[in-house]
Amino acid sequence: MNETMLAAVLHGAKDIRVQSRPVPSLAPGLVLLRARRAGICGSDSHYFEHGYCGPFVPTRPFILGHELTADVMAVGEGVTRPAVGARVTVNPPRACGICEYCKGGRSNLCRGTIMLGSASTTPPTDGAFAEYVTVRADQCHELPAEMDDGSGAMMEPLAVALHAVKRAGCVSGKRVLVLGAGPIGLLLGMTARAFGAAPVALSDFVAARRKTALDLGADVALDPAASTLMEQVKHLTGDGFDVIFEASGARTALRQAFDLVRPGGTIVQIGTLGTEDVPLPANQLMVREIQLVGSFRYGNVFDEAIRLVASGRLDLRPLISRVFPLREASQAFLLAADKAQALKVQLQVSSPAP
Amino acid sequence: MNETMLAAVLHGAKDIRVQSRPVPSLAPGLVLLRARRAGICGSDSHYFEHGYCGPFVPTRPFILGHELTADVMAVGEGVTRPAVGARVTVNPPRACGICEYCKGGRSNLCRGTIMLGSASTTPPTDGAFAEYVTVRADQCHELPAEMDDGSGAMMEPLAVALHAVKRAGCVSGKRVLVLGAGPIGLLLGMTARAFGAAPVALSDFVAARRKTALDLGADVALDPAASTLMEQVKHLTGDGFDVIFEASGARTALRQAFDLVRPGGTIVQIGTLGTEDVPLPANQLMVREIQLVGSFRYGNVFDEAIRLVASGRLDLRPLISRVFPLREASQAFLLAADKAQALKVQLQVSSPAP
Amino acid sequence: MNETMLAAVLHGAKDIRVQSRPVPSLAPGLVLLRARRAGICGSDSHYFEHGYCGPFVPTRPFILGHELTADVMAVGEGVTRPAVGARVTVNPPRACGICEYCKGGRSNLCRGTIMLGSASTTPPTDGAFAEYVTVRADQCHELPAEMDDGSGAMMEPLAVALHAVKRAGCVSGKRVLVLGAGPIGLLLGMTARAFGAAPVALSDFVAARRKTALDLGADVALDPAASTLMEQVKHLTGDGFDVIFEASGARTALRQAFDLVRPGGTIVQIGTLGTEDVPLPANQLMVREIQLVGSFRYGNVFDEAIRLVASGRLDLRPLISRVFPLREASQAFLLAADKAQALKVQLQVSSPAP
Amino acid sequence: MNETMLAAVLHGAKDIRVQSRPVPSLAPGLVLLRARRAGICGSDSHYFEHGYCGPFVPTRPFILGHELTADVMAVGEGVTRPAVGARVTVNPPRACGICEYCKGGRSNLCRGTIMLGSASTTPPTDGAFAEYVTVRADQCHELPAEMDDGSGAMMEPLAVALHAVKRAGCVSGKRVLVLGAGPIGLLLGMTARAFGAAPVALSDFVAARRKTALDLGADVALDPAASTLMEQVKHLTGDGFDVIFEASGARTALRQAFDLVRPGGTIVQIGTLGTEDVPLPANQLMVREIQLVGSFRYGNVFDEAIRLVASGRLDLRPLISRVFPLREASQAFLLAADKAQALKVQLQVSSPAP
Repeated sequence: MNETMLAAVLHGAKDIRVQSRPVPSLAPGLVLLRARRAGICGSDSHYFEHGYCGPFVPTRPFILGHELTADVMAVGEGVTRPAVGARVTVNPPRACGICEYCKGGRSNLCRGTIMLGSASTTPPTDGAFAEYVTVRADQCHELPAEMDDGSGAMMEPLAVALHAVKRAGCVSGKRVLVLGAGPIGLLLGMTARAFGAAPVALSDFVAARRKTALDLGADVALDPAASTLMEQVKHLTGDGFDVIFEASGARTALRQAFDLVRPGGTIVQIGTLGTEDVPLPANQLMVREIQLVGSFRYGNVFDEAIRLVASGRLDLRPLISRVFPLREASQAFLLAADKAQALKVQLQVSSPAP
Repeated sequence: MNETMLAAVLHGAKDIRVQSRPVPSLAPGLVLLRARRAGICGSDSHYFEHGYCGPFVPTRPFILGHELTADVMAVGEGVTRPAVGARVTVNPPRACGICEYCKGGRSNLCRGTIMLGSASTTPPTDGAFAEYVTVRADQCHELPAEMDDGSGAMMEPLAVALHAVKRAGCVSGKRVLVLGAGPIGLLLGMTARAFGAAPVALSDFVAARRKTALDLGADVALDPAASTLMEQVKHLTGDGFDVIFEASGARTALRQAFDLVRPGGTIVQIGTLGTEDVPLPANQLMVREIQLVGSFRYGNVFDEAIRLVASGRLDLRPLISRVFPLREASQAFLLAADKAQALKVQLQVSSPAP
Repeated sequence: MNETMLAAVLHGAKDIRVQSRPVPSLAPGLVLLRARRAGICGSDSHYFEHGYCGPFVPTRPFILGHELTADVMAVGEGVTRPAVGARVTVNPPRACGICEYCKGGRSNLCRGTIMLGSASTTPPTDGAFAEYVTVRADQCHELPAEMDDGSGAMMEPLAVALHAVKRAGCVSGKRVLVLGAGPIGLLLGMTARAFGAAPVALSDFVAARRKTALDLGADVALDPAASTLMEQVKHLTGDGFDVIFEASGARTALRQAFDLVRPGGTIVQIGTLGTEDVPLPANQLMVREIQLVGSFRYGNVFDEAIRLVASGRLDLRPLISRVFPLREASQAFLLAADKAQALKVQLQVSSPAP
Repeated sequence: MNETMLAAVLHGAKDIRVQSRPVPSLAPGLVLLRARRAGICGSDSHYFEHGYCGPFVPTRPFILGHELTADVMAVGEGVTRPAVGARVTVNPPRACGICEYCKGGRSNLCRGTIMLGSASTTPPTDGAFAEYVTVRADQCHELPAEMDDGSGAMMEPLAVALHAVKRAGCVSGKRVLVLGAGPIGLLLGMTARAFGAAPVALSDFVAARRKTALDLGADVALDPAASTLMEQVKHLTGDGFDVIFEASGARTALRQAFDLVRPGGTIVQIGTLGTEDVPLPANQLMVREIQLVGSFRYGNVFDEAIRLVASGRLDLRPLISRVFPLREASQAFLLAADKAQALKVQLQVSSPAP
C-alpha cells in the first residue's frame, strides 16, 4: 500500500486543496477504508462557506466527508467483521458505547462521540474526501451487491430521515407534511411515502423545489406563503396534518407548523435553527395536545436504510445531481452550495478496489 | 319507498333463499341504507356451510353481509351526519360507546356490541345482503368519489388487516412474514408492503396462492412444508422475521411462527383457531423475548383505510374475483366456498340510487 | 322532590349570589344528581375574579362547579347505570362520543364537548354549586364506600394530574420535577411519587409552597430563582430530569424547563399560559432530542383515579384546606382566591341523601 | 496484593469446596473487584443441586455468584471509570456491545454474552463467591453511601423484576397479579406496588409464602387452587387483571393466567418453564386481544434499581433471610435450597476494603 494518498483538505473558507497526505494508520479495533464515493452534506457546505460550522472551528486544516461507500483494505487487531474486501458504508459518529445513552440504544445523545470529517472534536477528525480513512469496525455496514456506490453514499442522509420518521412514532396511514424541500426534506417525503403516509405534502418557498418534490412522489406541494394555504390544508386533511417534519431550518416554518398540525398531532424538529429562541404558541400546544419532538442524527438505523433501498422500496439515485472526481473537489463544493442547481453532489474518490 | 325489499336470507346450512322481506324501519340515531355492493366474508361462508358460525347459532332465518358500499336513503331523529344521498361504507360492529373499552379507544373489546349480519346476538341482526339495511349513524364512513363500489365494500376486510398491523407496532422497514395467503393474509401482505416493510414474505401450502401473493406484491412466497424453509428464512432475514402475522388459522402455523421470528420479535394471531389449546414454546418466548399478540376485528381505522385506497397506496380491486347479482346469491356463496377458485366474491345488491 | 333548589349563581365579577333556582329537568340518557360536596377549581376562581374565564364570557348568570361528589336521585329514559341511590363523582366534559377523537380514546380533543359549570358553550352550562345538577349517565363514576365525600370531589383534579403523567409516558423510576406547587402541581408530585418516580422535586418561588410540597412527600423542593439551582439539579440528577411537568403557567418556568431536562427527556405543559407566544430554545430541543408535550384535561382516567385513592396509594385529604356550607359560597371563593392561605376549598352543598 | 484468594468452588452436584485459588489477572478494559457480599440465585441453586443448570454443563470446577457488592481494587488499561476505591454492584452479563441488539438497547438478546459465574460459556466464567473477581469496567455501577452491602447485592434480582415490569409497559394504576411468591415474584410485587399498581395481588400454593407476600405489601394473596378464585378475582378487578407476571415457572400457572387477565391485558412470562411446549388458549388470546410477552434478564436498568432503593422507594432488606461467611458456603447453599425456610441467602465474602 502507498504511504501517501490524495485528499481534499479544507484550509479555510472557500479554500479546499487537493493534496498529498499520509495514509492514516490502523489501530486495534479500527479498519482502513478506501473510499469509493463520498457525498457533500449541508454541514460540509457550511465548513466550506465559512471555514467553520456553527460552534465547531477547526484548529488545523482537515478533511471533510462523512457520507461514503468504501472498500475495507485492512483491519486492526481484534476485528472480526467486516472482512477485508467487503464494500461498506459508514455510520460516521463513533459513540463511546458504554454511557447510559449508548447502552439504552440512544447513542446519538452520547457526549463522547467522535464525528467523522468534523471539527466538533479538537483536533478535528479527518473524513472521507480522501483515498483512505479509518473508522471503528462497528461503524461499518456491509452493502449488498445490488446497491450502487452512489446510493451507498446516501445511507447517511437517509438515516437522518429514517430516524426522524421513527421519532414521529409511525407515519403509516398518517397525513404528513414536510416543511422544506432540500435533500433531507425530500428524503423525508420519500420515506414517508414509502412507509404508507397518505397524503404526503411538501412545502417550500421555491417553485423549482416544489416541482422536484412532486417529481419524487409527493402527493401535493404547498407554497408556505400562499394566501390559500389554510384552505388547501383544510381540504387535504380536515383538521390538519398528523405529523409535520420541520426540515427547513426556518424559524417561521416551525411557527407555522403549529397552525397546520391537527389536535393530538406531532411536529418533529430536524432542521438546524440557530441558537436564538423561537417564539412558539405553548398554550395552543397544551390545549390541542401537540407533541414537539427533536430529532438529532440517528441511532442504529443503517441496516434498515440499506434494506429499504436494496429491496427497491426507495430509489435515491434521482437525488444525486452530479458526481465529480476528487481532483475537482472545489468545483463540487461550489455546485453543492448552489441550492437552486443541485440536490446532492458527490465525489468519486477512487475507483473500486482492484 | 317500497315497503318490501329483496333479500338473501339464510335458512340453514347451504340454504340461502332470495326472498321478499319488509324494509327495516328507522329509529332515532339510525340511518337507512340502500346497499350497492356487499362482499362475502369467511364468516359468512361458515354460516352458509354449517348454518351457524362457531358458537353463534341463529334462532331464526336472517340476512348475512357486513362488507358493503351503500347509499344513505333516510336518517333517523337526531342524525346530522351522514346526509341523505351520501355514499358510505359501514363499520359493522355497533359498540355500546360508553364502557371502559369504548371510551379507551378499544371498542372491539366492548361486550355490548351488536354485529351487523350476525347471529352473535339473539335474535340475529340482519345484514347487507338485502336492498335495505339500517345501522347507527356513526357506523357510516363516507366514500370519496374516486373510490369504486367494489373497493368500498373491501374497507371492512382491509380494516381487519390494518388493525392487525397496528397491533404489531409499526411494520415500516421491518422484515415481515404472513402465514396464510387467503384474503386477509393477502391484505396483510399488501398493507405491510404499502407501509414499507422489507422484505414482505407470505407462506402458504398451496402453490396457486403463493403465486397470487407474488402477483400482489410480496417479495417472497414460502412453502411452510419445504425442507429448505429455515435456510431460506436465514438467507432472507438473518435471525428471523421482526413481525409474523398468523392469518391461516392453522395451529401448526402458529407453532411454526416461533421458529421463524427473530429475538425480540412479534407474532400477531389474527386467524381463528378453534377452542382447543395450542402447544406453544413458552420458554423460548421468555428467553428470546417474543411478543405474542392477539388481534380481533378493528378499532377506529375506517377513515384511514379509505385514505389509503383513495390515495392509491393500495389497490384492492385485484382481490375481487367475481361479482354476482343478488338473485344469484347461492351461486356466489358456492364460489366463495371454493378457496382454490376465488379470493373475494361480492354481490351487486342494487344499482346506485337514482 | 322540591321544584326549586338552592344554588350559588355567578352574576358577574366577585358577585356570587346564593339563590333559589328551578331544579333542572331530566331527559333521556341523563341522570339527576344531588350534590354533596363540590370543590372550587382555579378556573372557577378566574370566573369569580373577572366574571369570565379567558375567552369564555357568560351570556347569563350561571352556576359554576365541576368537582363533585353526589347522589343519584333519578335517572332518565334508557339509563341502566348508575342506579338511583348510587354515590358518584362526575367526569365533567360531556364529549360527543362519535367523532374520531372520541372513538380513538382521546375525547379531551373532541370539539363538541359541553363542559359542566362553564361558559365555554353559549348559553353557559350550569354546574354543581347547587343542590341539583344533571349530567349524562356515562359521566358518572361510582365511588366505593371507603372513599370520603371530600376525596370524591378531588377525583377531577386528580384526573388532570393522572392524565399529564400518562402523557409523559411512564414516570416510574424516573427523575421528575414539577414546576409550580399549586394544587395541580402538588397532585402531580404526589402522583409521581406514588408511581415510583425517584427523586421527585417540586419548584416554586414561594417558600411556604415549597414547605407544603415537602410535607406532601416531595424529596426536594427547589427555588427557581436560587443561584445554586443548576448545581442542585446536577447533584440530584446528573444530566437533568427525565420528566418535567410545567404546572405553574409561568412563561419563564417553561423556558427554564429546557435547561433542567436531560437529553432525551420530556417536558409536559399543563399550566395555562396565555395566548402570547413563548420564546423557546428549539435548536436545543432538536440537538438534545427533547419532547415538549401538551396535556389538556383528561381522558378516561376516573376509575383509575378512584382506585388509586380507594386503595390508599394516594391520600388527597391533606390538600383540602377548608369546607364551607353552600350559603357561604362567597366567603369560600374569597379564601380560594388567596393562594397563600388555601390549597383546595370545597363547598358542602347538601347533606347525604336520607 | 496476595496472589491467592479464598473461593467457593463448585466441583459437582452438592459439592462446593472453599479453596485457595489464584487471584484473577487484570487486562485492558477490566477492573479487579474484591467482593464484599454476594447472593445465591435460583440458578446457583440449580448448579449446586445438579452440578449443571439446564443446558449449561461446566467443563471444569468453577466459581458461582453474580449478585454482588464489591470494592474496586485495581483497573486495567484504558479504564477511566469506576475509580479504584469505589463501591459497586455488577451487571453480570458482559454483552458484545456491537451487535444490532446491543446497539438497539436490548443487550439481553446479544448472543455474544459472557455471563459472570456461569457455565453458559466454555470454559465456565468464574463469579463472585470468591474474594476477587474481574469484570469489564462498564459492568460496574457505583453504589451510593446510603445503600448497605446486602441491598447492593440485591440489585441484580431487582433488575430482573424491573425489566419485567418495563416489558409490561407501565403498571402504574393498573390491576396487577404476580403468579409465584418466590424471591423474584416478591420483588415483582414490591416493584409493582412501588410503581403505583392497585391492587397488587400475589398467588402461591404455599400459605407461608402468601403470608410473606402480604407482609411485604401485597394487597391480596390468592391461592391458585381455591374454588372461589374466579369470584375473588371478579370482586377485585371486575373483568380481570390488567397485567399478570408469571414468575412461578409452573406450566399450569401460565395457563391459568389466561383466565385471570382482562380483555386487552398483558401476561409477562418471566419464570423458567422447561423446554416442553405448553398448551395455551391461542384463540382466546386473539378474541380478547391479550399480549403474551417474554422477559429475559434485564437491559440497562441498574442505575434505576439503585435509585429506587437509595431513595427509599423500595426496601429489600426484609428479603435477605440470612448471611453466611464465605467459609460456610455449603451451609448457605443448603439453606438456599430450602424454599420453605429462606428467601434470599447471601455470603459475606470479605470485609470492606481497609
